[in-house]
Amino acid sequence: MKIYDISMDIHEDMTVYKNKEEKKPRITVVQDHKTGSSYTSYITMEMHTGTHIDAPLHMIDGGSTMELYDLEKFVRKCKVFDFTNVEDKITEELLQQKNVEKDDFILLKTRNSFVEDFDFQFVYLEKSGAAYLKDVGIAGVGIDALGIERDQAGHETHKALLNQGIIIMEGLRLKEVTEGEYILFAAPLKIRNVEAAPTRALLMEGIPIDSFK
Amino acid sequence: MKIYDISMDIHEDMTVYKNKEEKKPRITVVQDHKTGSSYTSYITMEMHTGTHIDAPLHMIDGGSTMELYDLEKFVRKCKVFDFTNVEDKITEELLQQKNVEKDDFILLKTRNSFVEDFDFQFVYLEKSGAAYLKDVGIAGVGIDALGIERDQAGHETHKALLNQGIIIMEGLRLKEVTEGEYILFAAPLKIRNVEAAPTRALLMEGIPIDSFK
Repeated sequence: MKIYDISMDIHEDMTVYKNKEEKKPRITVVQDHKTGSSYTSYITMEMHTGTHIDAPLHMIDGGSTMELYDLEKFVRKCKVFDFTNVEDKITEELLQQKNVEKDDFILLKTRNSFVEDFDFQFVYLEKSGAAYLKDVGIAGVGIDALGIERDQAGHETHKALLNQGIIIMEGLRLKEVTEGEYILFAAPLKIRNVEAAPTRALLMEGIPIDSFK
Repeated sequence: MKIYDISMDIHEDMTVYKNKEEKKPRITVVQDHKTGSSYTSYITMEMHTGTHIDAPLHMIDGGSTMELYDLEKFVRKCKVFDFTNVEDKITEELLQQKNVEKDDFILLKTRNSFVEDFDFQFVYLEKSGAAYLKDVGIAGVGIDALGIERDQAGHETHKALLNQGIIIMEGLRLKEVTEGEYILFAAPLKIRNVEAAPTRALLMEGIPIDSFK
């Protein structure tokens, strides 16, 4: 059994979307061992901090919140696809070269996984790719960028996926993972009535994969 | 395959330790579909909100932070023990009636799982029980209360466990789970350099348990 941690570290100087200062988490120690008998801290974080899951409400007016998703969607087989040779965007044409099947949860490994700072030209899932994944009928898609799309004014990638209840996972770190099939564990924090939630995402190998859906 | 969600819901009116107002999480919507093209919210939460893991620093001056723990400690076999007939506290004597073995991760199911409001008389792990678990050499212990101890002025239960690097998980919900062996998934949020972190804890059955440590 081997576990791959595919999550970002959360801390005050972590990489955030477009380097916006207000998106950095803040950690506040309210009591330590000098001022009390225990050490206690708080965190203030955007729901989209680090590795996280989006719900439809994020991009769709009146869309569902995180309660929409059954836990089974986060504990299951998944496929990692290697797109590290792609410079700009993942299109329908590129996805057609992989074995994408109905109900798959797919993770897109790109050159983003090798960049620590925010890259304004990060590799993204282009709208033709999102439309293709919707037509195939996948269950979820994850990417190693803090956004699944950029430079698409209508957020077409998010909307095509979220309108179908297809899970979007952002902020993955896939440098150590090679293309193949794994078990994904990525159940997000159980925050009620919100448009997204942070998660600790793991991949596992060496356990019988057919025990999982 | 069956998944039990043993985590608390996180929301602004959730149950918090001793009903302290400052311990309730706050969720702030900074943009919605009337004010922008997406919906974005923040959460401010104590690290000990809902279901969470404690690290030694919480109770020990100079203690380790969450980085101490290997992921393998959170993705593994565990044993649920039924102590729902206990009124007050779990002692060494009570634990000796169960099959506690070295390296076990044990979850204590008590009458707390059937109470939603904060119960100032919650069932806890008494210091003799903690000393026993330390002597056996367990890997971790979880309980269905927001604290693993109460009314012990020196925090002896926390300290006995945390001094040995034994994981403490608090805020579990075990009403639906019967005594027995399960696979535990409880990897916490990957927050750097802190004394505790919230987690989404799950139990699973119906997958080959011996694939896991």
